[in-house]
Formats: sequence, C-alpha cells, structure tokens
Amino acid sequence: MAHEELNRQVRQDLRVTDRTSHRRLREQGSTSREDLDAVLRAGFVCHLGVIVDNAPMVVPTVYGVDFVSRTLYLHGSVASRSLVRAPESTVCVTVTHIDGLVLARSVFEHGVNYRSAMVYGVPRLLTHRTDRRGLLTGLRVLTEHCAPGQWEYARRPSAKELAATTVLALPLDEASVKLRSGPPDDGDGPDAQLGLWAGVLPLRTVWDDPEPDPALTAGVRVPPHVSGRGHRTAP
Amino acid sequence: MAHEELNRQVRQDLRVTDRTSHRRLREQGSTSREDLDAVLRAGFVCHLGVIVDNAPMVVPTVYGVDFVSRTLYLHGSVASRSLVRAPESTVCVTVTHIDGLVLARSVFEHGVNYRSAMVYGVPRLLTHRTDRRGLLTGLRVLTEHCAPGQWEYARRPSAKELAATTVLALPLDEASVKLRSGPPDDGDGPDAQLGLWAGVLPLRTVWDDPEPDPALTAGVRVPPHVSGRGHRTAP
Repeated sequence: MAHEELNRQVRQDLRVTDRTSHRRLREQGSTSREDLDAVLRAGFVCHLGVIVDNAPMVVPTVYGVDFVSRTLYLHGSVASRSLVRAPESTVCVTVTHIDGLVLARSVFEHGVNYRSAMVYGVPRLLTHRTDRRGLLTGLRVLTEHCAPGQWEYARRPSAKELAATTVLALPLDEASVKLRSGPPDDGDGPDAQLGLWAGVLPLRTVWDDPEPDPALTAGVRVPPHVSGRGHRTAP
Repeated sequence: MAHEELNRQVRQDLRVTDRTSHRRLREQGSTSREDLDAVLRAGFVCHLGVIVDNAPMVVPTVYGVDFVSRTLYLHGSVASRSLVRAPESTVCVTVTHIDGLVLARSVFEHGVNYRSAMVYGVPRLLTHRTDRRGLLTGLRVLTEHCAPGQWEYARRPSAKELAATTVLALPLDEASVKLRSGPPDDGDGPDAQLGLWAGVLPLRTVWDDPEPDPALTAGVRVPPHVSGRGHRTAP
C-alpha cells in the first residue's frame, strides 16, 4: 500500500515533466550493460545520426557488435562524406525494437512498448590504408551479426573490394537504454470505470522462408545456417 | 543486350562511389510523392534527429501524417528541450522498413531490402497556448495513424492533459525516399559460378492477438477496430 502510494506520487511527478523521456512508470531508463547488449543483439539495422551542414541527418544502416572488445561497427560509407568533412565529430547510433501498441482508456495514455538503445561517440574510420586488419575484423563482425554463417560461406572481400570499403568503429562507452513493456498505465485510475477495452496490440518481426535468387544455378540448396532462421522471431 | 551493357556500365560507375547511398542497381532513390506516402503509411515509429549541444541526437518516436495538408506530426515532448533551446532549427525524420536480408555470393554484395524516407524541415511547435485547434488536430492525426479508430473510441484529452502536451508539425516539403528490393546483384557476374546459394531472407512484421489489460473489467470485449488488425502484416 505504501508502495502503491509511492508509485502514484512518482507518477504524478513524472506526468508534468517531459512526456516521452520519463513519463511512465512502466517506461524505464537503464544503463545496465546487460540491457544494452540485449537490445543490440536483437537487431541489425540502426539509425545513425550525424551533422551535415549544421543540420541533423538520420540514416538507416546495418551494424554489428563485437561484445568482447565492446565495439559497434557500421559501414563507413554511409557517413563518410560528413565524417571526412568533420572528423572527430560525435555520432549518435540508435537501435529500436517495437513490441506493441499500448491502447489505453484515454488517448493521453496511449503509447508504445519498445526497447531502444542510444550510443554516442566519436567513431574511428577504418580503411585498407589505415588499418587493414581492423577493417577485416569490422567486416567479419558486421557480416556475422547480420547473417551468421555467411562470413565462412560467402566469398570474402578481394583487395579491390577492401579498397572500396570503409568501416566505422564506435566504442560502447557512452550508451543508454530505454524500455517499456506491459499493459497501459490507466488501469487503476478513474478511467478504469469507463468500461472501455484496454490492452496491448503486440507487434512481432519474423523471418519468412528464404527466397532463392532466380539466377541461381539449379540444384544449389539453401545452406542450413540460412534455412535455420526461417519462421523464427527475428533476428 | 545494349540495355544490359548500359546497366553494367552504370553499375561499374556506382561501385566506386559511396557504398550505401548509391551502390546498387536495385537500390533506388526516389522523390516521388507516391513512394514517400507509401513509406510513411506503412509505419508509425520514426527516428527523429535533432542537434543538442553540438551533437546529433536520434530518438525513436511515434508519428502521424495528414496526407491532405501534407503535414507530419510528432510528439513535441521528445524534442522540446532541444527545440526550446534552438527554435527554428532543422530536424530530420527518418522512417525505415526492413524487408529482408540480401545474401549474395560475395560478402561485398550483401545488403538489405528496405524502404526508407527522410523528411527535413523546421517544425512548428503546437501547444494549447499557441494553437489549441492545431494541437487537437495533430493529436487526432497521430492517434488515428497509429491506432485507427481509437480517437473515436478512447477518452479524448482533458484541458489539463492538453496543457501538458506539445505536438510538432513538419511540412512534407523536403523529403526523399530510398528503396531496395529483389535478389542479390551478383547473379550475372563471375561469382555466379562459385556454386553458392544466394537469395533473400525476407523479414515481416505482424500484429499478434490483442492482449487485454489484466486490470480490465470482466466482460469488456475487444472492439472490432482493434481485433481486426490481428495476424495481419503490420501496420
């Protein structure tokens, strides 16, 4: 009871502050490494924010994480023009998973169940000239994070391809996580008496069956590391 | 044949430029309004980029679009602190749908099938003080875009709730779209002879069955506008 009162007090305080950052009891900020790693493991596309000509630019791109060296890798090309112009500049990498729509009794309490991580830092640009070994490591981590098994299976980059590739390496030093899960927050308020349905409409991302390239030579079978992902919740 | 040679020429040119922005024949930039609207209609969460203390900040947040007035609405709270500090500042709103992993014969040709839109602009901040009617319109558009039917069904915002709410309105004037679909691009190159499997691993987002709030009064049934979304490809 004391706990419930405390919660109500906290919620009241939060209600008047910034709505999305801190607004709900079931929405939590976390700086735990475990939460961060779980969010990063559960995806392979991030949104990279850079500053170009004094304006923010947000670009979707694939990423991969080496959880031992605690490094996040990105294809450098996506940001290379801005980073060449402004080296040593901070980027923001955001990874988001949407788990459902929170349908409350009131429009005001509507929201989204989600898991999201933000990583800030100044990335290192890896090229075949400056750090060939680092570049290869980055490409391997990127490939295996997105498509486990493909680094062994597919043809690896040639010298010419490596010369045309840059990778960004971002340390996982400065990061935060935000999560929300569970039902709407107005189940114990006056709106609960309105007799309206409330709940969550869950959203799920799944892999479908692999679609072979129509140009594929007849008789080439789907390798198990690819077929094994079908019909499973992604990734 | 002439067409194929032209394609090969173009591809060769693209290969040496920026990898993600322009690298592939099947990856296309578009400035068509139809493509833009289709990408925006197919989602309800965007990544908003703003500049805070000279660093980019990328925040996931819900959005809604009024396709008649061609206005994109966002919850203002998410960016209000930065926008109050720097009004009249440009933001970047990016919406991305991931449709599959492109598994090529070579690591270099791996990629993602996706649809993505970027909208740039200086948003107007709508509050109950400056534009109560605009604020209500924005909230209705946001609600109906994310959860069609809920603006009629749920309790609408009270005066107190409106006072605690801000909405950003961004005109759809400056926007671009990027799309990639189809199989890998190395089916007609020398790597096609490697005998490796290649294709696409499709990714799909689906709504699951609604989960009622455990606090729900017994006997309240899921309204049709909610139950009708279950098991359909989102949104």
